Order: sequence, then structure tokens, then C-alpha cells
Amino acid sequence: MSSPSTIVGVDLGGTKIYAVAVVDGEVVATAKRSTPRVGGPAAVLERVADTIDKLGVAGAVRRIGVGGPGPSIAGSSLLGPAANLPGWDRPVDIAGALRRRFADAEVRVDNDVNAAARAEWLHGAGAGADDLLAVFVGTGVGGGVVLDGRVRRGAAGLAGEIGHLVVVPDGEPCGCGGRGHLEAYAGRAGIERIARRRHAEGEATALVELAGDGRMKSSVIAAAVADGDAMAVELVDRAADVVGQAVASVALVVDVALVAVGGGLAERFGEPFLRRIEAAAATALPWPSPVRVVPTVLGDVAGGLGAALLFDEERS
Amino acid sequence: MSSPSTIVGVDLGGTKIYAVAVVDGEVVATAKRSTPRVGGPAAVLERVADTIDKLGVAGAVRRIGVGGPGPSIAGSSLLGPAANLPGWDRPVDIAGALRRRFADAEVRVDNDVNAAARAEWLHGAGAGADDLLAVFVGTGVGGGVVLDGRVRRGAAGLAGEIGHLVVVPDGEPCGCGGRGHLEAYAGRAGIERIARRRHAEGEATALVELAGDGRMKSSVIAAAVADGDAMAVELVDRAADVVGQAVASVALVVDVALVAVGGGLAERFGEPFLRRIEAAAATALPWPSPVRVVPTVLGDVAGGLGAALLFDEERS
Repeated sequence: MSSPSTIVGVDLGGTKIYAVAVVDGEVVATAKRSTPRVGGPAAVLERVADTIDKLGVAGAVRRIGVGGPGPSIAGSSLLGPAANLPGWDRPVDIAGALRRRFADAEVRVDNDVNAAARAEWLHGAGAGADDLLAVFVGTGVGGGVVLDGRVRRGAAGLAGEIGHLVVVPDGEPCGCGGRGHLEAYAGRAGIERIARRRHAEGEATALVELAGDGRMKSSVIAAAVADGDAMAVELVDRAADVVGQAVASVALVVDVALVAVGGGLAERFGEPFLRRIEAAAATALPWPSPVRVVPTVLGDVAGGLGAALLFDEERS
Repeated sequence: MSSPSTIVGVDLGGTKIYAVAVVDGEVVATAKRSTPRVGGPAAVLERVADTIDKLGVAGAVRRIGVGGPGPSIAGSSLLGPAANLPGWDRPVDIAGALRRRFADAEVRVDNDVNAAARAEWLHGAGAGADDLLAVFVGTGVGGGVVLDGRVRRGAAGLAGEIGHLVVVPDGEPCGCGGRGHLEAYAGRAGIERIARRRHAEGEATALVELAGDGRMKSSVIAAAVADGDAMAVELVDRAADVVGQAVASVALVVDVALVAVGGGLAERFGEPFLRRIEAAAATALPWPSPVRVVPTVLGDVAGGLGAALLFDEERS
């Protein structure tokens, strides 16, 4: 399906709301607002509507796709629960609230990472492929899976949650309360947690010296690696290794060969990081690895674009 | 699609060939032959044809589905490589050989475990469901994944190979040459390997006393567990635990909620084994587990029936 009319896509994140106006698969306008920290879902959805207004789309907004940080099942406009959004402790009907501001608009909802995977598949690193695993290595680790030309959403909208795959049984604590999960080793927050604990235990590292009391940004981690800091090199290498191990697990379950890796940490460390992921996946697979790891190409726009593409993806 | 005419399904295994005649989804005749150990693919496929003859299907055989122990991609009649079949070290065209015996027959090919998963989905434990993970815990561990009403085969026909998921990094050796894989802990052969090594190292166990120099059958493992043998209880409990851990991994990747578990070891240990798998999966998931574990219901007939159902499954 293609249409000349504008579709709005919204990436609803824990810190910012990023809206895009899409015409024929091209982003023609963008707008950003911060996500409110109080006021619950009503305040957040008002801000989403404000952000859409800021796009300055001519005429009525008739189609709105929203990707957010929680589960969403196909054919529903419910999103959540979403721990990163204020007071969002249950599924919330996105469509109802947005229709009060945009009468007659059709609203579709998806998980933000699944939306980003859709965008990379249709207009990015996976264009033309039937299958794609998209992995985003940022503060945490998220994934989206495209199989046989469909974004897999799953019975409860939880498909692609590879950040919680166990890579080290009884290993490092994960933000979810579990142990040994992928994102406890590969996410920026996990790396920070490990580095600060080891530093507190007496191990020297430029990571903590450079970050001080502030957040240990990926630029800090990159600077420590560039300095040859042993712990930084070890933790970033291990991050790639466990992502590769998880990629192999996905390949064993659904036999996907094309893997696009993005997110802040992956973008920061570039090709060597991706090649190390590919090598680790090959080591973990019992046969010659078909897995090819490529960078994502859409950056910050992927989530919003992928949400808009909910209206374009006939087969999903 | 339904048809009153007979479809032949063949489960081509490393030790036996099991053919079924299927009419309207019902098995109306079965035949078994042993798999030749010499003579290579030509001898094996002659024996397949002999087994089909033994079915005594009236009239010409027009449709033959074959499931075998190797990868097979959708739309191809190639099977393999298959380590469990003699001289089958490359993909072999099943259709060519069978058409020399059954002129004009349409031949379709699938992996044996994917075929069994298809049968359980369409006529067994998963009947009516859109999604199903089928796990077979026997000598090794195999899996098949049905997603959104399609058996997932994958780019190289390797989808569902969960027996090689890493459950213990750098753990027990697997038959494939890897380490710490699911089937190194949960398969009958893996349990035997561990028990014999620990026994050789001086640990007492009824497992080796009962098995002697013979194969450590599942009946032997069951007898040792019934006797309260500590190692047997530990190894069978751990088998269920690692299957549960793998089920959780599959749930994280594709969000499948219904899991059918079968195979010799699972059938032997029954409900307590399945409930332990379900509990282990729940422990490994970061949210309230939606995973329900049920027994497979089709037994030995699943592979052949599922191969015949290649002609019935329009969407796959």
C-alpha cells in the first residue's frame, strides 16, 4: 500500500518524544519534546499530541503510529506496562487519548524496538530481505525480529526481548531483577554498574576516573578504550561477545542470517564491534555461520519511521 | 486445502523409516523398515520407496512428503547434509530418486523435527493455536517453531535447532563439537555421557550398574530415578531445568506461549518433568510467565504425518 498522504510516526521514549511526518516512506518533518516525568499517561499523551502539532503537518492528521517502551499486540492500540514512562503500570489505550486531539485519526501502536526493526527492514539495513534481526545496544539492549516478511510481535507483544536472554547463568544482576542477562553485560548501564562495582572493590580504571559522579556515557567508555584502559577494553570486548552469543541463539531458534546492530554503544565502537559480534556468533554456532552483521542505518529516526510504517506494512 | 486422495508421509530416521498413508488428515496405514547403514543415499531412498510400497496404498502414489534428519528449505526437495544417514554428507535431491519409482508423484521435503512440529500443531497438542514450540527430548533434543500459523523453516532450513543453544557456557561437550549445549545436558546420550564419566571418576550410581556396557536407555534412567539414585535424580532434574531455560530463551525471541514437549525421555518422566520445565521457564523469564507446557500427543506418527501435511498446510 502506498499513499501520497502524510502519516505521523511517534517514538515515545522515557526521556523524549520524537515525532516524524512520513510521505511515501520518506521523513519530511521531525519534532522533539521531552517526556513529562509526572502526570501519568494522560500528561504523556498530551505531550505526544503537542509534539505532533509541532510537526506542522498541513491539513488533518489522519494516521498516527506510535512506538513505545512496552509490549503491544497486533490489532490493539494498548501499550504497556512501561516501566520507563511515569505511572504507566498497566496497558494504556493510546488511541482513545489521541483521538480526542485528532478526531477521526486512525491510531496504531507497536513496541518501540519492533517499530525500529520494521523501519530498518523496510527502508534501512534490511531493505529487500525477508528476515532480519535488529539489535540495539544502548543503555539497555533491545531487539526486533522480522521473519518471512513480517515483524514478529508475539502473543503478548514481547517478541525480540533478547536483552533478557541469559548469557551467564547466575551472573551479573540485571535491571529487571534477573541475573546474567545480555543487557547486564552489553548495555551501557550494565557496563557502568560492573565498572563502578569493581572500582569500589579497589580495581583501577579510567572509566570511573573519567565519568566521576556523572553518568558513564558511551563517549567516556570510548575514551577509556582509546586510552588502552584494561577494564574498559575487557568490558567492551565482552559486550560484543555476549551480543554475538545471543545472536547465535536467535539464529538457532529462527535461522535468521542478517543481523543489523545499532544503538549508542554500537555506533560508538563501529566496525570492530560488529565484526567481533559476528565472530562470537560464528563460534557459538555448530555449523558454518551464515550470520552477517551490518550496521543499522536510520539512527534516531528509526522508531518514529517504523511506527508510521505500521500503515505501510501490509503483511505484518 | 482438503482432498479425499491419499498422501504418503515418510519419517526418514537414522535407524528406521516410518511411512504413513494419510487421508483427510487421518493416518489410515503405516509401514516400517530399518534404515540401511551402507550404500549411501541411493540405498536409503530405495528403502524409502520399498517402505512406501509396503503401505499397500491403492492406486498410484501421487503425493509424497518426506521428513528427514537434516536441513531442508521451503520449496526445495533437497535434504541434508544428514550426519545420521549413511554417506549423506551433502544435500541430496529426494524427489529425483523417488520419482523413478513413483512416476509423476509430487515430492515435498522437510526437516523431520519441523515435520513433527507441524503435525502436533495441526492435529496434536497445538491444534487451533497460531503459535507452538514443539520440543522433542530423546537421544538428542530437537525443536520446531510455528509462528503466526506457519512452520518456521528459516533461510537454511535450520530453524528450531534449540538442542544447540548454550545453556552452560564452556560446559559439557556436545556431540556437535560445541560445549554446554542443551542436548549435552537434556538428551539421553548426554545424560549417559555425564553419568559414565562421573562413574569412571569414582562416583557411585545405579545408572551405570543397571546399564552395564549396554546403551543407557530411558527405562534404565527411570529405574535409577525410581530407586532414588542421587545422580540419576540430579541429572533428570537438571535436564528439565535446562529445557525450561531454553524454552524461556525461545519465548524471549519470538514470544511463544504454548510449548509441547515429547520424545522418549519426556514421555518416560511425564507430568513432573513437564511441570519442572514450566517452572524453570518461569524462573528464567523477567515477567510473569505466559508459557504453558503440555505433552505432545502424536508419538511416533508425528514425523510421517507432518511430512504428509506439507501438502495440507497452505500457509507454510
